[in-house]
Amino acid sequence: MKIIVDAMGGDFAPHEVVKGAIEAARAYKVDIVLVGKEEAIRPFLPGVSLEHRLSIVNATQVVDLREHPTEILHLKPDSSIVVGMHLLRTGYGEAFVSAGSTGAVVAAATLLLGRTKGVDRPALGTLYPTVHGSSLLLDIGANADCRPDFLLQFAQLGSYYTERVLGVKSPRVGLLSNGEEEVKGNRLIRETHQMLRRSKLNFVGNVEGKDIPRGVADVVVTDGFTGNVVLKVSEGFGETLIEILKQNLNSGTRSKIAALLLRPALRAFSRKVDYQERGGALLLGVRGNVVVSHGRSQAKAIKSAIRLAIQGAKAGPITEISGGNNNGQAE
Amino acid sequence: MKIIVDAMGGDFAPHEVVKGAIEAARAYKVDIVLVGKEEAIRPFLPGVSLEHRLSIVNATQVVDLREHPTEILHLKPDSSIVVGMHLLRTGYGEAFVSAGSTGAVVAAATLLLGRTKGVDRPALGTLYPTVHGSSLLLDIGANADCRPDFLLQFAQLGSYYTERVLGVKSPRVGLLSNGEEEVKGNRLIRETHQMLRRSKLNFVGNVEGKDIPRGVADVVVTDGFTGNVVLKVSEGFGETLIEILKQNLNSGTRSKIAALLLRPALRAFSRKVDYQERGGALLLGVRGNVVVSHGRSQAKAIKSAIRLAIQGAKAGPITEISGGNNNGQAE
Repeated sequence: MKIIVDAMGGDFAPHEVVKGAIEAARAYKVDIVLVGKEEAIRPFLPGVSLEHRLSIVNATQVVDLREHPTEILHLKPDSSIVVGMHLLRTGYGEAFVSAGSTGAVVAAATLLLGRTKGVDRPALGTLYPTVHGSSLLLDIGANADCRPDFLLQFAQLGSYYTERVLGVKSPRVGLLSNGEEEVKGNRLIRETHQMLRRSKLNFVGNVEGKDIPRGVADVVVTDGFTGNVVLKVSEGFGETLIEILKQNLNSGTRSKIAALLLRPALRAFSRKVDYQERGGALLLGVRGNVVVSHGRSQAKAIKSAIRLAIQGAKAGPITEISGGNNNGQAE
Repeated sequence: MKIIVDAMGGDFAPHEVVKGAIEAARAYKVDIVLVGKEEAIRPFLPGVSLEHRLSIVNATQVVDLREHPTEILHLKPDSSIVVGMHLLRTGYGEAFVSAGSTGAVVAAATLLLGRTKGVDRPALGTLYPTVHGSSLLLDIGANADCRPDFLLQFAQLGSYYTERVLGVKSPRVGLLSNGEEEVKGNRLIRETHQMLRRSKLNFVGNVEGKDIPRGVADVVVTDGFTGNVVLKVSEGFGETLIEILKQNLNSGTRSKIAALLLRPALRAFSRKVDYQERGGALLLGVRGNVVVSHGRSQAKAIKSAIRLAIQGAKAGPITEISGGNNNGQAE
């Protein structure tokens, strides 16, 4: 299997991206194609041992975060994002991973790969940590304004991915709302609730914010605005909590022993909320496997994103969802 | 000062409500009027010592959570919520506290007390815990669907409350969005951003979910759907985190010592996220001081809600906000 990696994407490119790619090639026994400025990438590639697994495809341009996403196809045709997406489209590799501009990756994927049949808007999903594992939360940022039928499609995409890639039989689909009763929610959610009820998905009804970490659904559907807020509140809350715990631990004589004893627990928890472990967001609803890694990704996050990409590539992209039932088919 | 308390509201009424009221009367030296079924309340009142501070106003009906909020005025005219709100309106007490149906309390307050001048929709606010204190988050559930001018009014109400009641000079007002840049957000947020920029509030721009626990704004404005999700995700996340920490602590030989050492830190944190300590939600935008306590409130939560009500009552209700500037005036 060959994974295409945008070597120029993110705050720590290309150094950390290349490092993560090397680690992934070693750990997962896959081939990696690094796309980007060859002269910038080359110095970070090691001498020999893995060279047969790593290759470079030169791309002379880099997408700037301030550029308008939909314009990069003609403004930056030789950028690592556009070149990488072309490589995926032509079958040169099985998946594309980028820590670059999310908007640009989504736009390039939508325009170059095309949308999954039956999908109006691709969505970004992430594996949100729960007590006993994780739930797929989507959309987490691709579509700030949504219609009910978009959310229905997100539910179908999420259900398909969870079943086919994660191996969950008949995934429980929940709709994020401000109350469990079907009359709860804003207009968008109330209308979506009715559509989901009529669908053939395993719809378990509205789920509240507090239910997400409890893992009451395998797929949690929301609009990209709310999903982004949920994810970031959780990240901020986790960080704040660990800080408060540390403050308390450092404030007494017990501090050193407690800190020592506590370390494994804190580390285990940090791993759960850490985006570097989660590996970034899955772009669902395009005809290809695309993973968007966090802009602050370092080697560990890139490695996790590549792991996620491999998982998806094994199952193949979602090429079709069908109206309201759960029979999406890979080609 | 006299605080009116709905003795019949919440899952643990009247027992826990009366218990919390007694504790509050003792701790804060205020008079409490318990509104509800006299024969149900009386058994929980103690013999002598505090009797001069506690009184009962009989109300024969109880509002059911399934009843439509706006109908309770004519369906349940002798309910504890309606009778209590009438008492507040006529100046029999300085604030009203209820752990009953949020919708019914909001509806009764809006209809009986009237809205603050310049406010279309009253909002629910809560003090969200941050690293160094708390931020006022509103709306957290009164209005699932909002217009930009509603959000501007929430900002004005929140700024006024934070300045007058909490004593924060020129409170920083942030708008919850999915990115800091002003082009980020859904349509509602982008339009609201422009209105806030033109206002005379101390608008610090968009804030992301992760910024809320960090305390980057004194007032965080959002619609009631998103606000509710934020609050509940945080509650669920905090609970889950503590559970994960406990699991880790119980899984090794170090468990007992570590659990012992960790207890103060966990307790300090729990206090921060615990709604029982926060005391419930403030109803802002009506001409009276109303606090809506959590439906699961036990004595401690009721006591905290009464403390919050006393704070608000000292400053007086917000009777007017003026267009875009920060000169709301109490009558």
